[in-house]
Amino acid sequence: MRGPDQVERLVAMLARLPGLGRRSARRAALKLLQDPGGLMLPLAQALHDTAESVRPCRICGNLDTEDPCRICADPHRDQEIVCVVEGVADLWALERAHVHRGLYHVLGGVLAALSGVGPEDLRIEPLLERVAAGEIREVILALPATVDGATTAHYLADRLAASGVSVTQLAQGVPMGGALDVMDDGTLAAALKARRPA
Amino acid sequence: MRGPDQVERLVAMLARLPGLGRRSARRAALKLLQDPGGLMLPLAQALHDTAESVRPCRICGNLDTEDPCRICADPHRDQEIVCVVEGVADLWALERAHVHRGLYHVLGGVLAALSGVGPEDLRIEPLLERVAAGEIREVILALPATVDGATTAHYLADRLAASGVSVTQLAQGVPMGGALDVMDDGTLAAALKARRPA
Repeated sequence: MRGPDQVERLVAMLARLPGLGRRSARRAALKLLQDPGGLMLPLAQALHDTAESVRPCRICGNLDTEDPCRICADPHRDQEIVCVVEGVADLWALERAHVHRGLYHVLGGVLAALSGVGPEDLRIEPLLERVAAGEIREVILALPATVDGATTAHYLADRLAASGVSVTQLAQGVPMGGALDVMDDGTLAAALKARRPA
Repeated sequence: MRGPDQVERLVAMLARLPGLGRRSARRAALKLLQDPGGLMLPLAQALHDTAESVRPCRICGNLDTEDPCRICADPHRDQEIVCVVEGVADLWALERAHVHRGLYHVLGGVLAALSGVGPEDLRIEPLLERVAAGEIREVILALPATVDGATTAHYLADRLAASGVSVTQLAQGVPMGGALDVMDDGTLAAALKARRPA
């Protein structure tokens, strides 16, 4: 493959990454080309190694080099609490915040009638099976505060009702540091409705 | 190397690309991880191949798989006109616009007293040597319309004066489609000064 075509192929691939448009992909390619040994080849190697070694966990759907993943395999974590998230990005966000010491369950999306995402497209059956196995006491629904997220939470609460497990969801309200005058109406309504003693 | 460390290493590398912060690098890594065969491994391969094969042209400094590059080697291009650019990104921009049918010379930067970039840090001597070789009739300075770009243009015009070659530079003014009320004062001043009959 001849040069510019090869560079153009690289630019086209970089442009498929979220956050990079065509123009920034070109700038990224140039920055890489200006430091082949220091950045470009190590990045190629890291991509190759990671692609070869990272797999979804068969239990929770987390991405890890080990299967079951190290969260599922960690005996120090609370095996009785499972936090249900839309995707691995949300799992990582909760892990970075060090706020959940139980296990996780990655749905792989949320129900979305308009895009044709139904229950069978999500990892809902594996969640019901985990709960049916008996060790889980609480399922925390940490789904996005959107219409689709709320629909999915309702659906899961329904499906889990018969199991007798406690089903909770994240509180909604004004985020830390949030100024009231920039909040949308829905957030203000939710925060007011869920008000508590000061 | 264990999983999350490996993913974190990949995220850290992606975050070094221009246009990608830490957060978008994480999103990019996740998108890659979700499609190892379709995107991640091909990207690794493209980076590897490009790093191995693309080199700066010994004549003009363009990046290409061939040396001299295919622009320098193209007999259909006007060998008498050389367009001087700050970097390869600008060369590519001019090539995409199909507006210059001569050759190029990549300086590798512009003079910047504050950052300590002097003439010896740029590919100025090779430019003077190309001009001294005698075939070049016109040098077009296509440098950025900044203080440093203008300083560099003046410096090059001075150095080239003795050679007898014609030295020109890009016109400054209001860009195509540009609304006057969003232009900065410098652009307006330059456009007014360089006004021409309608």
